[in-house]
Amino acid sequence: SVNPDLASERQTASFSVEELTARLDGSAEHTRMRRAVVEAIEHDPAFSREDQYFQSQNERYEAAVRKAVHLRRKMHEMGWTEDGPEYKYIYRALSGDVAFLLHRIFMRSISVLGSDEQVAKWIPLASQYQLIGSYAQTELGHGTYLQGLETTAVFDSATQEFTLNTPKISAMKWWPGDMGRSATHTVVFAQLYIHGKCHGVHPFIVQIRSLQDHSPCPGITVGDIGPKMNFEHIDNGYLMLQNVRIPRENMLNKFCQVQPDGTYVRRGSQKINYLTMTTVRISLISDEVLIPLMKACTIAIRYSVVRRQSKLKPGEEEAKILDYQTQQEKLLPQLAAAYAFHFINDYLQELFNRGYREIQRKNFDMLPELHALSSGFKATVTQHCTSAVEICLRACGGHGYSSLSGLPSLYTKILASCIYEGENTILLLQTARFLVKCFMAASTGQLVPPSVTYLAAAKPGTCPARNKADFLSPDVYTEAYQHMAVRLVSSTALKLQDLIQSGVKKHDAWNQCTVQLVQAAKAHCHYITVKHFAETVEKLDTKAGIQQVMKHLCDLFALHGILSAAGAFLHDGYISGAQMDMVSASYLDLLAVVRKDAVPLVDAFDFTDKSLNSALGSYDGQVYQRLYEWAQKSPTNKQVSPAYERYLKPLLHSTLSKL
Amino acid sequence: SVNPDLASERQTASFSVEELTARLDGSAEHTRMRRAVVEAIEHDPAFSREDQYFQSQNERYEAAVRKAVHLRRKMHEMGWTEDGPEYKYIYRALSGDVAFLLHRIFMRSISVLGSDEQVAKWIPLASQYQLIGSYAQTELGHGTYLQGLETTAVFDSATQEFTLNTPKISAMKWWPGDMGRSATHTVVFAQLYIHGKCHGVHPFIVQIRSLQDHSPCPGITVGDIGPKMNFEHIDNGYLMLQNVRIPRENMLNKFCQVQPDGTYVRRGSQKINYLTMTTVRISLISDEVLIPLMKACTIAIRYSVVRRQSKLKPGEEEAKILDYQTQQEKLLPQLAAAYAFHFINDYLQELFNRGYREIQRKNFDMLPELHALSSGFKATVTQHCTSAVEICLRACGGHGYSSLSGLPSLYTKILASCIYEGENTILLLQTARFLVKCFMAASTGQLVPPSVTYLAAAKPGTCPARNKADFLSPDVYTEAYQHMAVRLVSSTALKLQDLIQSGVKKHDAWNQCTVQLVQAAKAHCHYITVKHFAETVEKLDTKAGIQQVMKHLCDLFALHGILSAAGAFLHDGYISGAQMDMVSASYLDLLAVVRKDAVPLVDAFDFTDKSLNSALGSYDGQVYQRLYEWAQKSPTNKQVSPAYERYLKPLLHSTLSKL
Repeated sequence: SVNPDLASERQTASFSVEELTARLDGSAEHTRMRRAVVEAIEHDPAFSREDQYFQSQNERYEAAVRKAVHLRRKMHEMGWTEDGPEYKYIYRALSGDVAFLLHRIFMRSISVLGSDEQVAKWIPLASQYQLIGSYAQTELGHGTYLQGLETTAVFDSATQEFTLNTPKISAMKWWPGDMGRSATHTVVFAQLYIHGKCHGVHPFIVQIRSLQDHSPCPGITVGDIGPKMNFEHIDNGYLMLQNVRIPRENMLNKFCQVQPDGTYVRRGSQKINYLTMTTVRISLISDEVLIPLMKACTIAIRYSVVRRQSKLKPGEEEAKILDYQTQQEKLLPQLAAAYAFHFINDYLQELFNRGYREIQRKNFDMLPELHALSSGFKATVTQHCTSAVEICLRACGGHGYSSLSGLPSLYTKILASCIYEGENTILLLQTARFLVKCFMAASTGQLVPPSVTYLAAAKPGTCPARNKADFLSPDVYTEAYQHMAVRLVSSTALKLQDLIQSGVKKHDAWNQCTVQLVQAAKAHCHYITVKHFAETVEKLDTKAGIQQVMKHLCDLFALHGILSAAGAFLHDGYISGAQMDMVSASYLDLLAVVRKDAVPLVDAFDFTDKSLNSALGSYDGQVYQRLYEWAQKSPTNKQVSPAYERYLKPLLHSTLSKL
Repeated sequence: SVNPDLASERQTASFSVEELTARLDGSAEHTRMRRAVVEAIEHDPAFSREDQYFQSQNERYEAAVRKAVHLRRKMHEMGWTEDGPEYKYIYRALSGDVAFLLHRIFMRSISVLGSDEQVAKWIPLASQYQLIGSYAQTELGHGTYLQGLETTAVFDSATQEFTLNTPKISAMKWWPGDMGRSATHTVVFAQLYIHGKCHGVHPFIVQIRSLQDHSPCPGITVGDIGPKMNFEHIDNGYLMLQNVRIPRENMLNKFCQVQPDGTYVRRGSQKINYLTMTTVRISLISDEVLIPLMKACTIAIRYSVVRRQSKLKPGEEEAKILDYQTQQEKLLPQLAAAYAFHFINDYLQELFNRGYREIQRKNFDMLPELHALSSGFKATVTQHCTSAVEICLRACGGHGYSSLSGLPSLYTKILASCIYEGENTILLLQTARFLVKCFMAASTGQLVPPSVTYLAAAKPGTCPARNKADFLSPDVYTEAYQHMAVRLVSSTALKLQDLIQSGVKKHDAWNQCTVQLVQAAKAHCHYITVKHFAETVEKLDTKAGIQQVMKHLCDLFALHGILSAAGAFLHDGYISGAQMDMVSASYLDLLAVVRKDAVPLVDAFDFTDKSLNSALGSYDGQVYQRLYEWAQKSPTNKQVSPAYERYLKPLLHSTLSKL
């Protein structure tokens, strides 16, 4: 039975939840397909996550391998293929709790960087798990800066082999997933040397474990890097290479080749690799960032209407905590952000699909813009959503801190997204470099890519709003964001120019502006997100009240952003102090409005209880019962602790006579 | 041997590290004593934390109990007593990794709330661990709002007993430490009923487990609440009571008593309890909040001069990441905050000691101020420091995310401090209530406590700074903070008044202002912190360059705070946009200045390697070597995974013929 406090929230929805779910999925048909995949996965006990919170790192790893192997069978049984429409729902249905994701990157890198012969040799084996691959790029001492990698691959024309070495400890490969305990092969990125000359970083297929008994191959030292904040199920590994010899054919050679006599040949464009990295950054937003945030919102908001605490009015019963303005202020902006980023993600996916088609036609014009957008949005979305999940966790008080709430693992997992696939600060600086360049070009009248044409349209002016209602106009707030982004980009670009003109060296000047450059890049992404959210709302038809509630969320997202970065809007007087009070008043009004639909708005995310795996967030709101039932399953309740026999019994027995 | 990149940082310190350490400890003598305690603890293998990152929840619990029991022996052996000067260093030396902290709260509550007879009966047993106590206040459905507790204790005059019951699941005691697996007794807070009349919440001593065999007593259901984000070593528990009968003497009765015929007598003042809660909030700041932040700064800053990444200048070797402005911007404000909060903590401790002495003389005048300060500072310091530790973690990239860095456990532990001992938002609202009251009183000329007299001294005006150097004047920035705090308190107080005067009911008006009230309370605490830091620097003598470097940190803390809350300073034009650019310029200059002393400034915190327990943060900076050595000790490297035999071998063996 559903907790009555939660049930009552669903009776007053101002829109059709089912309709909104279909919009989020793309169509009602997509929703049906997604649900069919989820059901097939969740009804298969092999994919159960029930004991997950009680398992050790070893147990989590073993379960993930079991699931990965079972998934192949399941896909065959269900008729799902990697190219099929169901595929994208599988990972969501598994909540990412499966091994061999890096194996897929291994395959992708061979497909993209390998010759036809290499693809023909390796891909069939890999796709049947007849070998387990990994992707060994990052080293102990080297991450985002790939040129700094220290692993070497020296060509020996006498034997037609490369000799791979880890020259010092900082060159040890570190972090690659699936490598610590599973992989038999990996793609190693190493500095290629031919006749003493370095040709830069290249990828090599290296066998690291015996197919016979899984023991490390000669010259290979390999193992697991140990416990992390999350990803217990993944065997992130280390790898040391000592005079490991591989045949010449094992260098991935679609774009570069070493001929038998040692002649180095580069052919074709490497720009396509650039795009691969770029697409990975965009593709992770949905599965690794948005889903966790939507789950966290679902858990925290459902809990906040079940949890009662203290009294709002004397004499009444204790109030639902979501009825407190401070709780609304914590959670509802995160809910709005989940929708905002859902829509911007759709936009980015579309843009990237278009870009991909252009590039296949050898048109690389969009590449700089795509790179700047993917870097900036990867950084801002992961950062924003990580903070948002943390807020959801904290907003659930003590019970949010229990692993059984599901929030700790959502948080510790999403946090990693700020670090992997490019460190966020470095990514933002890449976006900033693009913005500064475009601003300079635009100010001399040159043509710039569509997403940055606004930089040329800078008007000084001030915000025209005269009362708090004016701040519910998307034109008003979008304009404010645009103004702010232009100001930050232009002022930083000018500071940079001034420094250089005053004699500071270019790289020093750049470093002296980086704090501000990061702010400018964030402002740019924030502006685009708000603008796109407002445009999306505009385009929604009004059926079933969805446009109305999305408008509220868009307003809330925009005004919350203005208040959070108030200094940036007040700085040049574009928004005055009095206007900021209007923003604040409108924002507080909106909290009360959105609060009414809060539960239906998270219901629309359509997570099953199994997928949430949260004692606080289930659809029925039976929070306390579930916490109690789940706690009893903990290994801490499954044994009398040896600590009692060893340490306590001797002390306590002496007490018996005294009480 | 010390990593040369780290060693070089120590050669250029602008002050004496040893001298600064002594100042942080209070005196050189205190430093010696602390080091002696640390050495005694760390040289005793029974207290080793070496395998901590690899242990299960069960193993962590057992180790913590072992350490607690061993500690008693150790204290006896060393001649340390609970009243002695060494005592406060023990917990720091153990890094909190020990059981029976709630046992101490059990004892404290009996000492404070129990009659002389009760103290005489229970304390000697408890102090010898002849019983293990706990403190059962929080329920599944009830936290900070104590009046809402649902557990009942009904007096039966026929048997001279209380019957305790958990009437429904939300009334189950939940979270008490040491209760899940250890405790034999606990203090249960329950609603007292006599002849059908409720007298509110009272404390009762209840035996929950047999002293004979540790099994639950009749009517008791007790267990462990399962995994949490941290505190694996603590057996946080649940407790259900079904018709549990305890003698009349087991109600703690120093202040309230139930006489044999059921007459309820209240005597003395309960205000002293109020102070107990207040002092706990202050006392946790040092051990649970400042130490973790100082450790996180030590780890992240040492790592940031060992880690090299990318190039600052073309042709040079890769740069120390701390030489990037963006990395300085992440870490150095956290370092400044650690010092700022260290000094404010000293101030609060002093204030509370003074308050305690006054109260013992039956002078309760300081109580409201102490309560407001302890609530506000508990909330702001825990919140600020939690964010700071997270920043340190993220600033270390992938390696920060490894448990072996020590940062994940520091973060997950400090996060709890935002939740326990009073939820932060509720605490800030208590501070805000005090501020509003004082502001109203002050504006009608009434006398208010010393920490809030500034509220009456509000001047409109604007900031007098004319160039960036002016913002290095403590008078200038302290005045700005004061102005901002007054503005936020007064504008919210006036909004509240307006609402009430316009007919909104008092409690509704309050709820409608809570978001702003929270901001006002934070601004007040921030102002006091800055002011006190500046005053402390002023009073330092100039010997050994310490005053100079502390001045830089104070400036940095203050200017970082202004930039972070720029909107609040710009709002009424007290600081103009042009002045904000000066703040920004001064701030960026300061980063480069403080960066030079960053390593000596964390060295001065004087943590041993064992205490940091971090592969990234050790004194010698041998980061990569240590990560590799520690990873090899992981249980994930101690067995061939059963996953290989079960799932992979059958697949891989079929490959042999194909390669």
